[in-house]
Amino acid sequence: MLILGIDPGTATTGYGVIETLKKDYKVLDFGLIETNKDGEKGKRLIHINKELTSLIKKVKPDCIALEKLFFSVNAKTAMAVSQAIGVILYTAARANVTVFEYAPGTIKKVISGDGRSDKKMMQKALRKLLGAKVRSRAHGKTHFDNSADGLAVALCHAYNIEKGVSISG
Amino acid sequence: MLILGIDPGTATTGYGVIETLKKDYKVLDFGLIETNKDGEKGKRLIHINKELTSLIKKVKPDCIALEKLFFSVNAKTAMAVSQAIGVILYTAARANVTVFEYAPGTIKKVISGDGRSDKKMMQKALRKLLGAKVRSRAHGKTHFDNSADGLAVALCHAYNIEKGVSISG
Repeated sequence: MLILGIDPGTATTGYGVIETLKKDYKVLDFGLIETNKDGEKGKRLIHINKELTSLIKKVKPDCIALEKLFFSVNAKTAMAVSQAIGVILYTAARANVTVFEYAPGTIKKVISGDGRSDKKMMQKALRKLLGAKVRSRAHGKTHFDNSADGLAVALCHAYNIEKGVSISG
Repeated sequence: MLILGIDPGTATTGYGVIETLKKDYKVLDFGLIETNKDGEKGKRLIHINKELTSLIKKVKPDCIALEKLFFSVNAKTAMAVSQAIGVILYTAARANVTVFEYAPGTIKKVISGDGRSDKKMMQKALRKLLGAKVRSRAHGKTHFDNSADGLAVALCHAYNIEKGVSISG
């Protein structure tokens, strides 16, 4: 099964593609959908739609695992990210791909064993999980960190649908 | 100038179309985009996109006036409405129509003279403003009330771009 994991954002949407094998998984691809920070809202949303549509066509995922928004203190950011999520849900539905949503706490628990892990602990767990091979394919730390969040939610879904899949690295 | 006013929602999006004349305005159309409450999120967003695209094609507005979300206590609703707003912004940008966003308080101030008006006061002011002719075209109270919110933001934009437009009824 091919899972496309997405960590949504207006400026940077991280994604990762994994293939679940019998009791294992393989990282096939990862990357970022980036939008122009100075661009108009509508145009940035069009860009997310276009890039995601191309990605779905290329990857042909069986499903999408999407990180839910943690309702943070910053209401303005939360609204902007929710708008991006709206376009992602729309784009996935247009492409007939089912979306499974996971709360950040659930993803953290599956990846690091602790639902309240901070960013550093999560990155550490993910680096361990994804191995040097994946890390070396990333173009620098920012690229890896953001894509890793996409891979994390894909791994979380893999674990959820098939408890047999070991994601302990 | 033709203004399409939109009051966004996941279940019910109200809209109203006005034409600004020299120092007056005319209500051309109003109505609702409704989605199936039991439907999947993605499909509901596709429905909003389709209906709004048709509406823009039919009306050919010069611009869209959109009511901003008032960040309420109910985070779940706020996220769902923001997702719908994301698809509305995307749809408008795809149709090359500029969107102007107005906060609820601004709309209230323009329509009723008080930025903190409650729903009842707003409805009263709008009923007075839009006249019996418009009210009689609505299919019942719910239809009128929701469409009226769309008309309200359109009127707010008309007032904002052309202070000469009298919206005192």
